[in-house]
Amino acid sequence: MDYSNLIENLIKGDTRAAARLITLVENDIQAAEKIINSIYKYTGNAYILGITGAPGSGKSTFISNLTKKLISQGKKIGIVCVDPTSPLSGGALLGDRIRMKENFSLENVFIRSMANRMQLGGLARATEDVIKILDAYGCDIILVETVGVGQSEVDIFKSAHTVVILLVPGLGDDIQAIKAGIMEITDIFVVNKMDLDGADKKVAEIMQMLELGMNFKYSEEKTDSDFAKIKQWTPEIVKVNSITGENFDSLLELIEKHKKYLKSSKIIDSYKINRIKSETSQILKYKITKKVEKLLSSNSVIDDYIKLVMDKSMDPYSMANLIIKLLGLE
Amino acid sequence: MDYSNLIENLIKGDTRAAARLITLVENDIQAAEKIINSIYKYTGNAYILGITGAPGSGKSTFISNLTKKLISQGKKIGIVCVDPTSPLSGGALLGDRIRMKENFSLENVFIRSMANRMQLGGLARATEDVIKILDAYGCDIILVETVGVGQSEVDIFKSAHTVVILLVPGLGDDIQAIKAGIMEITDIFVVNKMDLDGADKKVAEIMQMLELGMNFKYSEEKTDSDFAKIKQWTPEIVKVNSITGENFDSLLELIEKHKKYLKSSKIIDSYKINRIKSETSQILKYKITKKVEKLLSSNSVIDDYIKLVMDKSMDPYSMANLIIKLLGLE
Repeated sequence: MDYSNLIENLIKGDTRAAARLITLVENDIQAAEKIINSIYKYTGNAYILGITGAPGSGKSTFISNLTKKLISQGKKIGIVCVDPTSPLSGGALLGDRIRMKENFSLENVFIRSMANRMQLGGLARATEDVIKILDAYGCDIILVETVGVGQSEVDIFKSAHTVVILLVPGLGDDIQAIKAGIMEITDIFVVNKMDLDGADKKVAEIMQMLELGMNFKYSEEKTDSDFAKIKQWTPEIVKVNSITGENFDSLLELIEKHKKYLKSSKIIDSYKINRIKSETSQILKYKITKKVEKLLSSNSVIDDYIKLVMDKSMDPYSMANLIIKLLGLE
Repeated sequence: MDYSNLIENLIKGDTRAAARLITLVENDIQAAEKIINSIYKYTGNAYILGITGAPGSGKSTFISNLTKKLISQGKKIGIVCVDPTSPLSGGALLGDRIRMKENFSLENVFIRSMANRMQLGGLARATEDVIKILDAYGCDIILVETVGVGQSEVDIFKSAHTVVILLVPGLGDDIQAIKAGIMEITDIFVVNKMDLDGADKKVAEIMQMLELGMNFKYSEEKTDSDFAKIKQWTPEIVKVNSITGENFDSLLELIEKHKKYLKSSKIIDSYKINRIKSETSQILKYKITKKVEKLLSSNSVIDDYIKLVMDKSMDPYSMANLIIKLLGLE
């Protein structure tokens, strides 16, 4: 299939073309490959904000308000809502989005929900492709929202310039629940619902956690090439009220500050390298997995191996090693 | 390291050896490979029951009661609790397990919780290895409980002979939430908390869903070799009360009926083949992913590719294709 018309329209900022291309990259990796190949040169202009928080932290209201503020600054916004825990592309998440859409003119905001559909697997890969389409479409800022607190979020957030996490007063366990993985890559902590009792206590809890050195994103101890070896960015904390919009100006300033920090410290280069590595790795894993599955389902040598394993003359690890040899991967 | 002493003790039914070997296979794939290689010939005797249900469906109480019944029949039970949504190996899940343990003498029950820890990734692989250790240890029945409703459960349940799903009256959305993926592989539907209003309504809902042909596990339409091409097993439905134990005898009869069905229809052979394929595939994916990550982190050719992608002279899909060539995988 030829996507050149759609892509031409996408670059011009056509909303329908964007929606159509997103559906294509979600459902078909061959299409994704062709489309990304054609649009890649038009990407790299959008600023990507990763936003997460435990259920009940008010992500939808927060994103609605943030989007309004950004629109009023004349920005074009893309919102990608990713739910790695759900195999459904609907439900509560979609309901939230519909409510969210009512608040905006569709001219300046493009909203898309993504769930973990079985047939494709690579949600992080698909999300990365959707971000690229919105980037080429002309979004200045892309908000990537994730639900839940798992490893998949960490993969998804590898393409975010700034990672914002929402916490709320009172929800005692949210730091505990969220810290493994996500906490370490957070740039800005937002205490939402600041009008509730305990907002300052929550700020204190975050500060305590940060003092314990649990944020490693730019830490010098982390010798891994994934991270810069200097510790210059201390994660910022801000209290907001997403309903009244209180303190959103401070939040926007912090995002701007982090953006400048990334550029001035040249961490932006290691961000770009990491993003490319992460994307390529997602694509490779997907492609190689497909090859492995194909091989396992239709190969007479494999059938012989399976017989040996059924007889307990061989175990699955030994079978896997023989297949690695067969693939020439040793 | 030499594991022969531990393995010798495991085969004799030593609980400490089982616990130690499980920790080893969870944390270290090299150890897992050696251990499974040595114990594989002692496996294949346990009957594996997969149990899942939405949060609030009363899985812990259900499993406690089921375990008591099975112990009273003189069985040795292994319980593996898998939480793919949590990167933590503690929290609520562990609390439940501790409460569960109080109900049993430890002689006949072995309980283990597993969470999705970052360093390993392959939770389905590790779960499969833990099942094998409990099998060699002498468990007659292994209950594999999963939390949540994602694709990971489907992978984990590939080793289950019989899959049981818990639903509860009133929880309106549980069928909706759970059906994608899990519903299709369910053999027995249990309506727990049968004393609540709406238990019969829930049974009717399940029947309606089954009439819509949404259970495909042994369906003739499914030509995939993963499934038998005959439709003989209609998923059973049973109402129980996990607190009083009401109807647990009926449930046990249904499990026995399904066990006999698997044997008599020779579906057991395709079950075994599928299980071996699934295990091997998990191991392969893990090993190949590690290879890909290693290659991406330390290869001068890759660094040149990354530069090209940074310059937008190439896109990540093209880079992935070049690496597949480099790996000789084309």
